[in-house]
Amino acid sequence: MFRTHTCGELRIEDKGNKTTLSGWVQTIRKFGSITFVDLRDRYGMTQLLFSEELNTILEQNPLGREFVIQATGTVNERSNKNPQLPTGDIEILVTEFTILNKSITPPFTIQDDTDGGDDLRMKYRFLDLRRQAVRQNLELRYAVGRATRNYLHDQQFLDIETPFLIKSTPEGARDFVVPSRMNPGQFYALPQSPQTFKQLLMVSGYDRYYQIVKCFRDEDLRADRQPEFTQIDCEMAFVEQEDILNMFEGLIRHIFREVKKIDYTEKIERITWSEAMWQYGNDKPDARFEMKLCNLKFPAHVFNDKKDISHLISNVGFNVFDDAETVIAIAFPGCAEFTRKQLDELTEWVKRPQIGMKGMVNIKCNADGSLKSSVDKFYTEEKLKAIAEATHAKAGDLILILAGNEEKTRKAASELRLHLAQQLGFRKPEEFKLLWVLDFPLFEYAEEDNRWVARHHPFTSPKPSDIQTMIDNNPVIEHAADYLKHPYASIKANAYDMVLNGHEIGGGSIRIYQKELQQKMFAALGMDEDEQKHKFGFLLGAFEYGAPPHGGIAFGFDRLCALLGGSETIRDFIAFPKNNSGRDIMIDAPSTIDEKQFTELQIKLNLNE
Amino acid sequence: MFRTHTCGELRIEDKGNKTTLSGWVQTIRKFGSITFVDLRDRYGMTQLLFSEELNTILEQNPLGREFVIQATGTVNERSNKNPQLPTGDIEILVTEFTILNKSITPPFTIQDDTDGGDDLRMKYRFLDLRRQAVRQNLELRYAVGRATRNYLHDQQFLDIETPFLIKSTPEGARDFVVPSRMNPGQFYALPQSPQTFKQLLMVSGYDRYYQIVKCFRDEDLRADRQPEFTQIDCEMAFVEQEDILNMFEGLIRHIFREVKKIDYTEKIERITWSEAMWQYGNDKPDARFEMKLCNLKFPAHVFNDKKDISHLISNVGFNVFDDAETVIAIAFPGCAEFTRKQLDELTEWVKRPQIGMKGMVNIKCNADGSLKSSVDKFYTEEKLKAIAEATHAKAGDLILILAGNEEKTRKAASELRLHLAQQLGFRKPEEFKLLWVLDFPLFEYAEEDNRWVARHHPFTSPKPSDIQTMIDNNPVIEHAADYLKHPYASIKANAYDMVLNGHEIGGGSIRIYQKELQQKMFAALGMDEDEQKHKFGFLLGAFEYGAPPHGGIAFGFDRLCALLGGSETIRDFIAFPKNNSGRDIMIDAPSTIDEKQFTELQIKLNLNE
Repeated sequence: MFRTHTCGELRIEDKGNKTTLSGWVQTIRKFGSITFVDLRDRYGMTQLLFSEELNTILEQNPLGREFVIQATGTVNERSNKNPQLPTGDIEILVTEFTILNKSITPPFTIQDDTDGGDDLRMKYRFLDLRRQAVRQNLELRYAVGRATRNYLHDQQFLDIETPFLIKSTPEGARDFVVPSRMNPGQFYALPQSPQTFKQLLMVSGYDRYYQIVKCFRDEDLRADRQPEFTQIDCEMAFVEQEDILNMFEGLIRHIFREVKKIDYTEKIERITWSEAMWQYGNDKPDARFEMKLCNLKFPAHVFNDKKDISHLISNVGFNVFDDAETVIAIAFPGCAEFTRKQLDELTEWVKRPQIGMKGMVNIKCNADGSLKSSVDKFYTEEKLKAIAEATHAKAGDLILILAGNEEKTRKAASELRLHLAQQLGFRKPEEFKLLWVLDFPLFEYAEEDNRWVARHHPFTSPKPSDIQTMIDNNPVIEHAADYLKHPYASIKANAYDMVLNGHEIGGGSIRIYQKELQQKMFAALGMDEDEQKHKFGFLLGAFEYGAPPHGGIAFGFDRLCALLGGSETIRDFIAFPKNNSGRDIMIDAPSTIDEKQFTELQIKLNLNE
Repeated sequence: MFRTHTCGELRIEDKGNKTTLSGWVQTIRKFGSITFVDLRDRYGMTQLLFSEELNTILEQNPLGREFVIQATGTVNERSNKNPQLPTGDIEILVTEFTILNKSITPPFTIQDDTDGGDDLRMKYRFLDLRRQAVRQNLELRYAVGRATRNYLHDQQFLDIETPFLIKSTPEGARDFVVPSRMNPGQFYALPQSPQTFKQLLMVSGYDRYYQIVKCFRDEDLRADRQPEFTQIDCEMAFVEQEDILNMFEGLIRHIFREVKKIDYTEKIERITWSEAMWQYGNDKPDARFEMKLCNLKFPAHVFNDKKDISHLISNVGFNVFDDAETVIAIAFPGCAEFTRKQLDELTEWVKRPQIGMKGMVNIKCNADGSLKSSVDKFYTEEKLKAIAEATHAKAGDLILILAGNEEKTRKAASELRLHLAQQLGFRKPEEFKLLWVLDFPLFEYAEEDNRWVARHHPFTSPKPSDIQTMIDNNPVIEHAADYLKHPYASIKANAYDMVLNGHEIGGGSIRIYQKELQQKMFAALGMDEDEQKHKFGFLLGAFEYGAPPHGGIAFGFDRLCALLGGSETIRDFIAFPKNNSGRDIMIDAPSTIDEKQFTELQIKLNLNE
């Protein structure tokens, strides 16, 4: 061992003891004839004191930033204590030292507030990982993993490894494929998730399975997506939705307790997908704050159980609202004092192509109770008051109103809500709010093919009450424009998402376990019998031999860790992430391969001109 | 929840309580008007009693083997108790039941002694996994994983995930590669191990790293190899070999204690590679039994520190021994009574092409002290006695002697030793013997290219005392025939293997951490500077920024589990293994992919005619 203690270990109680430390030189400070060195390792930092006697040796063996050294000496009480540092009461009076390895000057400083830009830090990730901020992220990640394993162990889950070299069954995302040398012309695929294997394990009777496992998706990477990512993947047999929700509320509470020392005792609210869209315009609402949507106008076939209050805005000749499918208002607390400039900026913001609104109406609820609106010439103060009441606005609030087509307007309202909440400081990273979103639609409409796709995945069970609707109706969509009126559009799934601070951290469903229903589902997605057999014959086969009712959930481990770490950037919580082109710029991968490899795999390039 | 208890849970204390169980129908037995059903789940088996009143319902809903049912009833004391079964004192007096799912007749019986052949069981692996024997294997695997994590956690190791989509750097085994759609013409590789990443983590200061991680090798599969396999991968900084040996002796003892309830307190012996070859003819000796090799004749340049006793066999005109490079004898205890037929069979066995010996000499040490040999006409009884003494043979033993070229003869002697040990019942699966093998050669000779290859891997450090030899000498081998006389042949590595019952279960080394030495090593393996930079530039770069001394080890998790489970077949300890052609015959992978996938990846097939 090159050390007797770590750099975070020694205390005033160790005074007078001999010690050997090894670590990296963080800083070197010369005071006259003596030299102070801060020595750093994973566990902390300890001050070394090189007295005058060592000057000759130090001159012959000069130290530098990030040198690796081993130093032996006596633990000494510091005259100038540092209360910020756990080891701040002591220093090591060095008697001998060895330079274990030198370092050239690092391209950026190894400090929390480093001077290195993103690209530089990714290229030298091995140096970036030395920074305390990054190390704490990976330690948190480890702690989340360990808490997860301990909880699931206590609940009798078994960690069972599923294969990585599986079969390509693209449905939804693209597969990464791996040419098989031993089976020329054939390919493995890397799993997008262990979905079918965990279901087979249920068929095999392993009624509580989990895995913290890498998954792969070959998608064009939006910001903060990775081609390889990690899931906490779980499945249970002989359960209903309620059992799963309880089990994994337990998991997340356990993680909060163990990792964040937070006793998350409050009830985790449940909201239906439809209600989430109604109240937040979003199926992963950030519920840390209110500012809910007030639906002044909406299409009846989408929200058929809601009360129509469009009379509040109609019959005054304001065409923008009259012509709109949907009109949504939000009251922003304490924003009545926004300047003209601020309001103009917000209007510009909703008019950006990403949001795509044509404009925005505002109503200021002044402190004196009066109201002032950008559409005063259409609406009397009485009318404005009725609208303000509907939005639950108080004196001092600012009401913003968006109008247009249902989908776009709802999305814009959701975005505006989050945007202003951010500005107003309502999105506090260290405040946590969990939510279940339930009763998702089973199907989503795919416009390009005019057909249904599975919203979650093809193994998700419809709500029991909707199974008959699914069996009785032909999935074919006769009138593309009216797809929302097709009986399939209203079928709900036995699916659930766990949402934390406006991010989906986990999602799952009760699965189909009957062969016939699974076949019906595949058919609904446009898969004929041959394709079903080729892609999922093994699963349909397994369902013939006594498949139990089962369901599960998968948590996005990277995202969960990032949010618990108070960040929204998963890359900071992955040791060796890839950039937005899927490249690891440190090792320079992907890269070309040898001619011999092509020959052995019996493939060749076919590059586009 | 579809149950209140599991099928392994109820005891006589629960008598009179109401319960609901769910599980699979194992057996159905009718006795007059009542029906007994054994209901099975992961936790055990419970007897259900369907009384006469349920007969009508049973007739309308007949049960069958492997049906999934839910049954509610009262816990009843059994009149005919089964002491073999933890639940054997009770049965459930069923009041109502539901068939949750039916099963067609399984292709083999779901029992420990199943009637299913290997292929059938692999095709229906989801049914094979239901068998108790297989389930216990996977439970053992889970327990080994958990014990590993707990021990390493207590030792302050961090589980840090390394990437799966890395760079192809074939050296030794073949890589699986993954075409990158976003970087046309370029490929990722799947890791053969996280070797370079764990070394980078050491450079980053994460001084104790581990991972239980999938690794990939595209090799022609010998029996009991898998293209994807799992390692317990570990690395430590600021350590020397002794620290690693101690740390991982601790791990293996912990695993024995936790998983097997075995207190493995005996010293784990250490043997050098050279001594292992001398005593066992094998670098992973099965030390559960003696029967060591007696080297009657050997090449002096291979074992230069050993005493030559070839005078015992020479000068009697027996050309077979005189002409042989190597003559090795082994005394097999209590085998003097072997019949002529048995001896002939053994001779045939060593003459098989896999062993390749020309014949075998025997000496019977009779109970009365007399000796009888197949080469009596060359050796006097006195001479035979001297040979017998050298082999430490006792009265009643049989000495077998092999002669020929060094490499082949030593290997044959090792195989013969294991073969007879198996026959004699010395290889007891539930007896465990651990061993460290140390001081491996750093290089191996690659005949086809007349160059050196790394015996362990190119990151293994030479013994400090051999570093100068490596630096001072040109790696080029001038005379292929005399490669063993090249100075590189005698360089020892700072490497170690842990051996259990004749199988390597773990191996590792102290690594090179100096850039110049690493470059020298790459050069010795025939890599020019361009290739070094292309393949391992990131590692050489990292070594410039303060790399600490470090080393590690990796355990073959599948093999370790198999051996602890008393088996030598890793396939039985993997949930979804592949066959010898690398196929998963259950899901039928690998398989063809869509034209669209080829187009997107910009590759095409180039199949050999």
